[in-house]
Amino acid sequence: MNALRIGMVGLGTVGTSVWKNLRSQGELLAARCGKALRIEKVSEKNRERARLAGVPEAQMVDDWRELVRDPSLDVVVELIGGTGVAAELIRESLSHGKDVVTANKALLAEQGRELTAFAAERGKRLLFEASVAGGIPLLLALREGLIANEILSLHGIINGTCNYLLSAMTSRALSFQEALREAKELGYAEADETLDVAGHDTAHKAVILSALAYGFWPALYEVHTEGIQNVDPLDLHFAQELGYRLKLLAILRSHPKSGEIEARVHPTLLRKGHLLSSVRGVFNAVAVRGDVVGETLFYGRGAGGDPTSSAVLSDLASLARRETTAPSMVPSGRQVALTLRPMAEILSRYYVRFLVEDHPGVLAEIARIFAARNISISSVIQPEGHRGQTVPLIILLHQSQEADVQEACRIIETLPTVKRPAILLRVEDLDGEEGRSS
Amino acid sequence: MNALRIGMVGLGTVGTSVWKNLRSQGELLAARCGKALRIEKVSEKNRERARLAGVPEAQMVDDWRELVRDPSLDVVVELIGGTGVAAELIRESLSHGKDVVTANKALLAEQGRELTAFAAERGKRLLFEASVAGGIPLLLALREGLIANEILSLHGIINGTCNYLLSAMTSRALSFQEALREAKELGYAEADETLDVAGHDTAHKAVILSALAYGFWPALYEVHTEGIQNVDPLDLHFAQELGYRLKLLAILRSHPKSGEIEARVHPTLLRKGHLLSSVRGVFNAVAVRGDVVGETLFYGRGAGGDPTSSAVLSDLASLARRETTAPSMVPSGRQVALTLRPMAEILSRYYVRFLVEDHPGVLAEIARIFAARNISISSVIQPEGHRGQTVPLIILLHQSQEADVQEACRIIETLPTVKRPAILLRVEDLDGEEGRSS
Repeated sequence: MNALRIGMVGLGTVGTSVWKNLRSQGELLAARCGKALRIEKVSEKNRERARLAGVPEAQMVDDWRELVRDPSLDVVVELIGGTGVAAELIRESLSHGKDVVTANKALLAEQGRELTAFAAERGKRLLFEASVAGGIPLLLALREGLIANEILSLHGIINGTCNYLLSAMTSRALSFQEALREAKELGYAEADETLDVAGHDTAHKAVILSALAYGFWPALYEVHTEGIQNVDPLDLHFAQELGYRLKLLAILRSHPKSGEIEARVHPTLLRKGHLLSSVRGVFNAVAVRGDVVGETLFYGRGAGGDPTSSAVLSDLASLARRETTAPSMVPSGRQVALTLRPMAEILSRYYVRFLVEDHPGVLAEIARIFAARNISISSVIQPEGHRGQTVPLIILLHQSQEADVQEACRIIETLPTVKRPAILLRVEDLDGEEGRSS
Repeated sequence: MNALRIGMVGLGTVGTSVWKNLRSQGELLAARCGKALRIEKVSEKNRERARLAGVPEAQMVDDWRELVRDPSLDVVVELIGGTGVAAELIRESLSHGKDVVTANKALLAEQGRELTAFAAERGKRLLFEASVAGGIPLLLALREGLIANEILSLHGIINGTCNYLLSAMTSRALSFQEALREAKELGYAEADETLDVAGHDTAHKAVILSALAYGFWPALYEVHTEGIQNVDPLDLHFAQELGYRLKLLAILRSHPKSGEIEARVHPTLLRKGHLLSSVRGVFNAVAVRGDVVGETLFYGRGAGGDPTSSAVLSDLASLARRETTAPSMVPSGRQVALTLRPMAEILSRYYVRFLVEDHPGVLAEIARIFAARNISISSVIQPEGHRGQTVPLIILLHQSQEADVQEACRIIETLPTVKRPAILLRVEDLDGEEGRSS
């Protein structure tokens, strides 16, 4: 049987899992692909890692440059991460006629457009199923399963660390710091948690999902990104009371008439009835609405060596099974040039919490300021206090434009009875019956 | 631009939707496939349907035999249903060098092994993404996305009618007949509901899923199949009380050591915490556990013209995009010959309800009979009654073998204090943290 000859660079968590799982699943994959998948060469600076993973000395290559130039290899798997050497490595591999598989979301978010174009020019494939929601074959679903659909919207819980933290804060009333300490102990958060909790990792994945769903790579720095580091347990409490749960979501939405795409990342209130709101712990889930198919949802483990290596191996299997070089990206199919809709122009529902002095007339004053901008209020929670005390005032707004809501809040914050900057959270009502659980 | 030239047979709900959606999504699909998808010929006996769908007279073909022999066509889409003419049509199409796309689950469940082999011998592809859980790209996920995984188990809600009925009975305490009447009015149940409510449709799909997951086609008549037509609202009530919901599931499970596959269809109690238990109304959802990836779940609309046509179009796109004839099925990859595990030998947890005379000692007697077969009881609900009255007695059993439980129930039913045949429902505990919602 002939073989797909693979060179792998990087033996961290994912690389080690790919090595291990290709050994255990090798027979299965060979039977299913009609071709053996064989890792011929591995490059990893840290020789101790290679020894621990059980990679024979003879297969180790000191310099990745040597590996990517090896004419006996068909594919290079890039698992070193980062955006410097990794980019060079991928270009070099493609230039030397290799297909490339990567899990590098930071790199794709930054240079995905250029790298996929570079691959296409050379008739090579650059595959990256593992870069978003590792255990969920989501890119495949977007690229092939839902190919007949214009993607109307996508709502994704795609950072397991953040979902773990918010789940723990919600179900056990922990503070953010308490939840973070626990997550670090359990290995669900990195020593430096910033990339995850500030929403950057989710934004990386949002950019990649936009490319898959729309053939459109938004500039990473233009994707509105808020993390969960400032989420106050008080808001989790009031959200709960209003029938919502708070999740960090990546949201994509298309506006075919204007050719605009929304791509944003922020903590979002979701109705408790919706399946997404029930996704707990480190799991990922992505709700995708297509114009033909209606609502779909995909759920699974988003990170970790095994789920991620399942995705890397499926990319390798796809290379092994197809002799043709089908494109790894699908174009949007629409003739309009797509642009990112500015955050100020999005429409959303909102949850706003003010800290106010408990005086008669405060709510009336605030409501007047909203009304002057045509923003209407759908509900209010105003816990009773003593006259003159400061109390929280929670207001849910009907669909309004971001800029108007921001402006109204800035004005309200200048009122003498309002004591602190407003806490503003967006609310997504995933429509209709669809996706509602009982 | 060259085109994929399609002949379609059958203009029912699905056929009409495929025609309509290929018109609306044609530009999108052409851009994404690098090739136009063009329905050149349509065969449908009922000319009125063709007229209503807007198929031009010039594209209509009276005899499907003429259509499948047309040398200008690349693909035949079979959407007439049934197992007679449809089988002949598919064989004829393959014999005449066409690839075939079908949504015909009854036919595949009956003759899928022969038909896929027939296609493979001719180097042609027989694709059927639309045959199971239409709106969910599930077969694609099994065939490609999870290709590196041995599928450990699969639990699927794959009949929208049954899920609608059970949801309505649970949330609004309707009887089966009341829920059925409503479902018929809403178009969620066929005039003759038997195929759906007796579990046959689910069994058809279970056979197809087994083929995808294991390369193993169980004989349809050997798949243990129970429907929901006898579900008593009383059991929905007690299930609720015990923290469960009742769903009609297709269950697959592999036993690699013995080379056995479980494939069965029956109403099943699922813990309320699990996402599957929250799937409401006509939606479908399938939880798939892979040995590498862990638990995944796929959710969407299972039936209806639009979701089903989304799947048909994705199969057509896959034919348009690939010049190679990759296999439409994946072999199991294991060297063992697989067999179906007999129902009597499966292990499960159970819910059993007896109708008993309210006498002291009745429970002890029943417990003794279970214990004699090493079946242990995990909980009991015994509503209080008056001495001598008949009352329900609900017993949850730990994992036991089907044959033992059945035998114990037969013996218990002979007790003078036991008034009616036992109601027996199986319970699936989808393990661990995975798939648990909050």
